[in-house]
Amino acid sequence: RSGGGSSLPHELRIEPDKILKPSSEELIDSGTSYLRDDWCKAYTLRQRIEEPGCISRIITNRLCYGQCNSFYIPKQSNDYNQAFQSCSFCKPQKVAYITVTLRCPGQDPPIKTKRVKRIKKCRCMAIDVS
Amino acid sequence: RSGGGSSLPHELRIEPDKILKPSSEELIDSGTSYLRDDWCKAYTLRQRIEEPGCISRIITNRLCYGQCNSFYIPKQSNDYNQAFQSCSFCKPQKVAYITVTLRCPGQDPPIKTKRVKRIKKCRCMAIDVS
Repeated sequence: RSGGGSSLPHELRIEPDKILKPSSEELIDSGTSYLRDDWCKAYTLRQRIEEPGCISRIITNRLCYGQCNSFYIPKQSNDYNQAFQSCSFCKPQKVAYITVTLRCPGQDPPIKTKRVKRIKKCRCMAIDVS
Repeated sequence: RSGGGSSLPHELRIEPDKILKPSSEELIDSGTSYLRDDWCKAYTLRQRIEEPGCISRIITNRLCYGQCNSFYIPKQSNDYNQAFQSCSFCKPQKVAYITVTLRCPGQDPPIKTKRVKRIKKCRCMAIDVS
């Protein structure tokens, strides 16, 4: 999803503190097409894998960083203190586990293995905020 | 906090899938000055307050909408499957409770009151994602 925001409805394209139609809850509720595009990217980083007595190794991994949509909208219902709320988190969408072997000279055993979670892909994903 | 991103460190300003220094975890951990500015705004909306047998009233309230920072970074530690993670949620920072009086002609009693939470201010706020 790239930047833009051309799909924003008139109600949300306006500046803060302008009046929204009472139907704005349903506008947002009915789908994400009315929200501005958010973003969440994978950045490669080097990660040092180490163990006492062993020669450390550097592997490549990824971090996730982004700015995802979230909102909090008072409900048009009997309970006016309830809200329709949603929050997305830029986190790994796809991971793989790799085994890293470290050489440990003079140790018994002379090698050690570590299981490392490697991030493959990131994405804004809804989390529970109720 | 307005847009921009001029405070981004070289390590995070780069395009996705370029190599980050192993110290990038600490860069983000040490404060938000290395993150791009996020945003969270209050939009005024009209909210209909109604009760069976009463004349409904429209009040002004606010909704919160924005795009807040979140990230997920593999830990440089013994447990390589742990992560340093953070997620912010655009939600009410300040609320006030108001009492709305509805006229209910021919009813007993002829008025009813509803307590309504009114959003005053919104802000990106960290939520627990552990």
